[in-house]
Amino acid sequence: MQAPPPEHCPGVESEQAGQVSACAGCPNQSICSDPNKKLEDPGKALVTAALKDVKHKLLILSGKGGVGKSTVTTLLTRYLARSCPDSNFGVLDIDICGPSQPRLMGALGENVHQSGSGWSPVGIDDNVCLMSIGFLLGSVDDAIIWRGPKKNGMIRQFLSEVDWGNLDLLLLDTPPGTSDEHLSVVSYLKDDNAPDSVRAIIVTTPQEVALLDVRKEINFCKKQRIPIVGVIENMSSFRCGHCGHSSEIFPAKTGGAAAMCAEMEVPLLGSLPLDPAIAKACDAGEDITSIKNATTEALEGICSKIMSNFS
Amino acid sequence: MQAPPPEHCPGVESEQAGQVSACAGCPNQSICSDPNKKLEDPGKALVTAALKDVKHKLLILSGKGGVGKSTVTTLLTRYLARSCPDSNFGVLDIDICGPSQPRLMGALGENVHQSGSGWSPVGIDDNVCLMSIGFLLGSVDDAIIWRGPKKNGMIRQFLSEVDWGNLDLLLLDTPPGTSDEHLSVVSYLKDDNAPDSVRAIIVTTPQEVALLDVRKEINFCKKQRIPIVGVIENMSSFRCGHCGHSSEIFPAKTGGAAAMCAEMEVPLLGSLPLDPAIAKACDAGEDITSIKNATTEALEGICSKIMSNFS
Repeated sequence: MQAPPPEHCPGVESEQAGQVSACAGCPNQSICSDPNKKLEDPGKALVTAALKDVKHKLLILSGKGGVGKSTVTTLLTRYLARSCPDSNFGVLDIDICGPSQPRLMGALGENVHQSGSGWSPVGIDDNVCLMSIGFLLGSVDDAIIWRGPKKNGMIRQFLSEVDWGNLDLLLLDTPPGTSDEHLSVVSYLKDDNAPDSVRAIIVTTPQEVALLDVRKEINFCKKQRIPIVGVIENMSSFRCGHCGHSSEIFPAKTGGAAAMCAEMEVPLLGSLPLDPAIAKACDAGEDITSIKNATTEALEGICSKIMSNFS
Repeated sequence: MQAPPPEHCPGVESEQAGQVSACAGCPNQSICSDPNKKLEDPGKALVTAALKDVKHKLLILSGKGGVGKSTVTTLLTRYLARSCPDSNFGVLDIDICGPSQPRLMGALGENVHQSGSGWSPVGIDDNVCLMSIGFLLGSVDDAIIWRGPKKNGMIRQFLSEVDWGNLDLLLLDTPPGTSDEHLSVVSYLKDDNAPDSVRAIIVTTPQEVALLDVRKEINFCKKQRIPIVGVIENMSSFRCGHCGHSSEIFPAKTGGAAAMCAEMEVPLLGSLPLDPAIAKACDAGEDITSIKNATTEALEGICSKIMSNFS
């Protein structure tokens, strides 16, 4: 394993590369500070090498927080892993300030082991493994109060120093927004010679205020030339457990995700209902994909559309 | 108005201050690069001067996205403005990548005017004004793809170059997490000689997976020594419009916000139900605080507790 970049590394692609006090003593300083060399982040080559046996990468994105990116990531992973027992799936949680995957996957309190080939991700199932900063915290309540560059360093380590092994699909659960984490992960994973090297799924709720942020995220993907597999509408309706009546919790004033997808020319993969049973199972880290209900039926349709993109 | 910092300003409190290529030509370079001066960001003095007639500042925080920070900010502002017609209220939306306040406040498409004393915030009501990056975008779908330092520069401008005038309370709607935006706003607003110079309200939903992130946010406030006014539990229950039965949409496996507040020793201000009428009104930017229902009743209790902190 190569020496880590200095703690305050300005990033080799930045204007300050090689020129700031933190660069003193870094073995790459002379390369970084040469203005005639337009450099790629050396981390990118390390990431490419580390992920050479990962067939497909899928970002789970949403401009809006709390729409269910993490829950959808967990549900997709578990459903796909159950339907394709001969394929291997990995989940990387790059929500550095609010990692939810350890709880959703029922792996809270697990430890990550270090071996000669890097950190070993935590095994969730025979064909599912997970890496999250949640595994590296002393206490689950610890706040990660980091500005961008430190978060980027962590993401780079997760991509280049985790022993992912052979994976058919690596799902990346992201924080809300279009900022440091998103730019970092895209710059590390994107291969200009292979336009499908990384793709994205966008999660939204039907509300206009969520769709507003989601449109921004779709434009982010378009600007970064990340192909969008499609949009998943989450919490589309709520079925009263008492009378069975279906209510719109987050009313779709403007036609919801379907109208937005038509307008922005991206496919709609499907809608997941708001199901308290799912919220409860997720809090407890339980797998509910073996049960037959409205959610898993919707999930089946969504997963088959996703898989048709990766054949 | 003073010249803006250079675009790639590393921040005067950083180790690279005055030493990077972006500093060339900046009038502050000689001060910044002097290692014997432990400098405060000169922006801080500007912020203090610009906000000298703002009596109280209140951060609306949550580690988790989508719990309703923006909706709660809007509801609190409107309710307080209605109950205290002689007081003036301001709202600053520092969610740079996902600004929701223009829509929630019904001010989408409004423009910010520049005058001799700075940007004029948009008037929402006689005693409510709002500033958001949403007003500065060419199109509402534009994605702000900025790393930390650019976001910080924007927040500094919002605090130092907006003509807030006389305000009794400035509410700051924040993005999820504990990262750049939060560190910036705290460093600009905190006055070590006045511990109550800025206070925080934490918003959560009852789910364990939300509380997990909210605990981090409470620890962030404790580390940064920001007094916490209290916690608001949002989306605590859903009343079926058909049969009237109340359901827990996001089940509280571990006692919800009440248990967490007791454990973390912070006050619980109250719980707001999940009300599709609110979601609909918010999407449309309408004010619903004049209507009498379960939500506005809960809001009344919460607001009176908040006001008792600011007397």
